[in-house]
Amino acid sequence: MRKLSHIELLQRQADQKRFPLPFSIVLNDIRSLYNVGSIFRTADGIGIAKIWLCGITGCPPDTQISKTALGAENTVAWKYQRYAMDALRLEKEQGAEIVLLEQLAESIPYHEFRPRRPVCLVLGNEITGVSEELLELCDRAVEIPMAGLKNSLNVTVAFGIVAYHFRNSLAAGMSSEAVQAS
Amino acid sequence: MRKLSHIELLQRQADQKRFPLPFSIVLNDIRSLYNVGSIFRTADGIGIAKIWLCGITGCPPDTQISKTALGAENTVAWKYQRYAMDALRLEKEQGAEIVLLEQLAESIPYHEFRPRRPVCLVLGNEITGVSEELLELCDRAVEIPMAGLKNSLNVTVAFGIVAYHFRNSLAAGMSSEAVQAS
Repeated sequence: MRKLSHIELLQRQADQKRFPLPFSIVLNDIRSLYNVGSIFRTADGIGIAKIWLCGITGCPPDTQISKTALGAENTVAWKYQRYAMDALRLEKEQGAEIVLLEQLAESIPYHEFRPRRPVCLVLGNEITGVSEELLELCDRAVEIPMAGLKNSLNVTVAFGIVAYHFRNSLAAGMSSEAVQAS
Repeated sequence: MRKLSHIELLQRQADQKRFPLPFSIVLNDIRSLYNVGSIFRTADGIGIAKIWLCGITGCPPDTQISKTALGAENTVAWKYQRYAMDALRLEKEQGAEIVLLEQLAESIPYHEFRPRRPVCLVLGNEITGVSEELLELCDRAVEIPMAGLKNSLNVTVAFGIVAYHFRNSLAAGMSSEAVQAS
């Protein structure tokens, strides 16, 4: 196997560029600014259209966010909305399906859910998750199967796992639409 | 939607417990002890059978590893092997397919690869990846599609994305085997 040259890496990256996906996220009461930055970096890789920063979640510009976002805080569209509820209502008005990442009575394994239309993924606080009142605005809930001692993952890792799965479903849908249209 | 009580959470977790999957990982020259700890936490969630810690990668017990592993460093089997090459040879002798996570000329999108037998996922240094000599021992290479400005993800996030995809394929295979055997 062969390593890519720097030029080849840039070319491959250019080939993979896409318009933003119909995919937004809501970060509600995320405590750690490093986590916010890391989520920006992953969101940039996915091509997420918008990040809503809500409640106590910190916003750019911030040195801790920059340390893990590595510049992605300048490439992904974001908006601060004090109450996540307002962000969810705006997303619903745009036709998005609201999907919460949390272990609820109704949660299904994330990989069994395939978004077929604009989707808005909601992440709550690292410890307490989302508030009861937000639950009512969510259409679906997904969770990550946990096989071991611990009952949760780091929020940035959990986000990456679920968001890339959504990305794969959405990108596959967009490709088949392009084929049908041609 | 309804939040789970603590008892219900524990019950759900107990329902999801599985024997370790035929899935091991090699961490070669991972620089950050926090990254090592975070990978332990995710590996615990997946049910990974073994972690090989190679080269400069730090080992438990270590306070930085514990800070992100949150106890998972005591639940996932691991071994330090100075040269990753030796770990890969031992894995190959056990029948494992060696899969490298890195952007190589031969890399395919990770979600197009479905492990069907024991698999060993190799992760290299955060900056330089794996050495040329290790490439020759790898059977396959996978990469994560990158749509934005940045050309890489944090290694713990990248690991979570790919490893949970492998977990889903392996767990589905084991379920169908169980059905066939019954």
